[in-house]
Amino acid sequence: MSELVSKADALDAADELAAARKQFVLDDEVVYLDGNSLGALPVNVPGRVEDVVRRQWGELRIRSWDESGWWTAPERIGDRIAPLVGAAPGRIVVGDSTSVNVFKALVAAVRLAGDDRDEILVDATTFPTDGYIAESAARMTGRTLRPVTPAEVPGALGDRTAAVLLNHVDYRTGRLHDLPSLTAAVHAAGAYVVWDLCHSAGALPVGLDEHGVDLAVGCTYKYLNGGPGSPAYLYVRQGLQDRFDSPLPGWNSHADPFGMRGDFAPAQGALRGRVGTPDILSMLALEAALEVWDGVSIKAVRAKSLALTDFFLECVAAYVPEGRVESVTPVAHAERGSQVALRCEGAGDVMKALIERGVVGDFRRPDVLRFGFTPLYVGFADVERAARVLAQVL
Amino acid sequence: MSELVSKADALDAADELAAARKQFVLDDEVVYLDGNSLGALPVNVPGRVEDVVRRQWGELRIRSWDESGWWTAPERIGDRIAPLVGAAPGRIVVGDSTSVNVFKALVAAVRLAGDDRDEILVDATTFPTDGYIAESAARMTGRTLRPVTPAEVPGALGDRTAAVLLNHVDYRTGRLHDLPSLTAAVHAAGAYVVWDLCHSAGALPVGLDEHGVDLAVGCTYKYLNGGPGSPAYLYVRQGLQDRFDSPLPGWNSHADPFGMRGDFAPAQGALRGRVGTPDILSMLALEAALEVWDGVSIKAVRAKSLALTDFFLECVAAYVPEGRVESVTPVAHAERGSQVALRCEGAGDVMKALIERGVVGDFRRPDVLRFGFTPLYVGFADVERAARVLAQVL
Repeated sequence: MSELVSKADALDAADELAAARKQFVLDDEVVYLDGNSLGALPVNVPGRVEDVVRRQWGELRIRSWDESGWWTAPERIGDRIAPLVGAAPGRIVVGDSTSVNVFKALVAAVRLAGDDRDEILVDATTFPTDGYIAESAARMTGRTLRPVTPAEVPGALGDRTAAVLLNHVDYRTGRLHDLPSLTAAVHAAGAYVVWDLCHSAGALPVGLDEHGVDLAVGCTYKYLNGGPGSPAYLYVRQGLQDRFDSPLPGWNSHADPFGMRGDFAPAQGALRGRVGTPDILSMLALEAALEVWDGVSIKAVRAKSLALTDFFLECVAAYVPEGRVESVTPVAHAERGSQVALRCEGAGDVMKALIERGVVGDFRRPDVLRFGFTPLYVGFADVERAARVLAQVL
Repeated sequence: MSELVSKADALDAADELAAARKQFVLDDEVVYLDGNSLGALPVNVPGRVEDVVRRQWGELRIRSWDESGWWTAPERIGDRIAPLVGAAPGRIVVGDSTSVNVFKALVAAVRLAGDDRDEILVDATTFPTDGYIAESAARMTGRTLRPVTPAEVPGALGDRTAAVLLNHVDYRTGRLHDLPSLTAAVHAAGAYVVWDLCHSAGALPVGLDEHGVDLAVGCTYKYLNGGPGSPAYLYVRQGLQDRFDSPLPGWNSHADPFGMRGDFAPAQGALRGRVGTPDILSMLALEAALEVWDGVSIKAVRAKSLALTDFFLECVAAYVPEGRVESVTPVAHAERGSQVALRCEGAGDVMKALIERGVVGDFRRPDVLRFGFTPLYVGFADVERAARVLAQVL
């Protein structure tokens, strides 16, 4: 037994989150390192979904909007996500896609900033949809969009800055950006910040309330395991909720939705971020999926995440011949999310070969192998095996 | 046996759609006349959803985006809806809520109309969300919103009109508006029309292509039985697809979504109306639900719908004492959707009593009892019973 195999065994034996793996449907033949794209299925989800379909919809039908808690699901599930991102209850509402929530948040941020501020800064390295939606938000609010790297943000801020849209963890490199200091810098310039938490929520502490983040959005199908395309969420800081002015004021965000009034009067609190009828099947699957977090400390998740990525880099360094791969993920813990991205020649074919051998990551053009480490169900033996198979493939 | 009971039996015996009822989960003790709010559960949906959850998500995981057809679901399911609303393949994409699609369609319509046209007409009697979203679309495109009744539309159209948002069937009264002639009037004024089909699709022929409708949206959880909050759809006329300029250009509407490019280049065709990651559980439940339409003629559905509402009005007239209820649904077939709305004193309490006695409709403030007739699973004996119980309650 190699030294790294022994080390993996020891790390797994000491892993306080090891038991969480039992809460997921997994195949022991497969090392699933793509939970940063689609989280694995929690074991309690199929039964819940069946109940929602057969009993709540099939038997209770329309009564379920009230009796099965469908109507209040967006804010109830928001409160369930809240502790995972450091938010108090009443700050988060679930619904719509991440893209749609980026639009709501960014337009609302620009409106909060007022007419004198005419510039929106957006992370030029971000997941593309954020940039496309930011461009639309800028166009529709008459602002100028200025793409900058996160490192350039402090220097680019000024009196003209209305809002800044940033990704907490870069989807490609896995770089973790400094949310507290960037948020403080944006505030010092008198602007508003929108954070996209897609690649951080459920993998590391976010501290939305603590750091005074204005608005945030995130998906729920990566580290939160909500299922394919499960609804995203929107966070609005308490002090801004009364002034949150949504560009998508659907009837679900009305103060009296069943009054069916012609004039719009916004609801109070986070549910002002709702729009249309919530997507119940996906939403209640997500609600069940979130139960795996009961009793889980997000600090413990972060500690294990860093241990997993450290160990993966160690195994890759030991197994893979020098020069065949280059990590583009920062070495410093303070700058690392929960994934490792390796640049590699022929990365597309390499990933295909890995998947054939039971190691599932993903490929991001042009040359990146992306491996996501989900602390609730990935163990250290998985990590060692993944690096070993990678070396074999190369 | 009363004459109306005999008549119901005869109508049921001659009903060519009677067999469709077997495709739904229904309780024979209940007369469900709320399918215009939430359609009943088709029997093939629970098994399909279980497969999506357990096998596609649980076992195939990320591979399902390709192998299980998740990625192409929005346009594939759009093509499945297309024949129900008179559209050729490639015109409809499924996803997001109706409210979000109203926003996409109306902003796109205004942009098509050009800068010289500064007014948006909206049906003042419409379902409120359309009005709220229209107000936001007007605000964000610098246009003026002008609420008018559908009857006032022809007189209100002019050189200033950019776009007109209309409901095909009024959600409250069940009045069917004249889509062909209103569409022609809007076009004669050089403007663009957006139709909301929530209360008509699946209940009567729409003829989107035939009548040259520009844009349309609709929900799928009423007559299309997609389940609670199932995703809505967006229709874009073929001749406009190249110029369709979405206010929500998410990565799913990019010509090369996995290129992860910084610049937005819109896809061709209906899928330009996509935004973010599609909500797979709800979407594939909808896909299964749409199978009940295989071999069903929408003309036969319309014929039965009118027969059902005619018979309901006949039974109400026979059973309910004069003056206790007043129908606000037009008598003329050409002006009637697939519901009957009765004004009634104490309508809220009356509906509660009806539901206790197994007749499920709904109540719309301030004084409307709303009964929806879904031809695929409501029969004439149901109709007779509903009217009889209503008379007992009153």
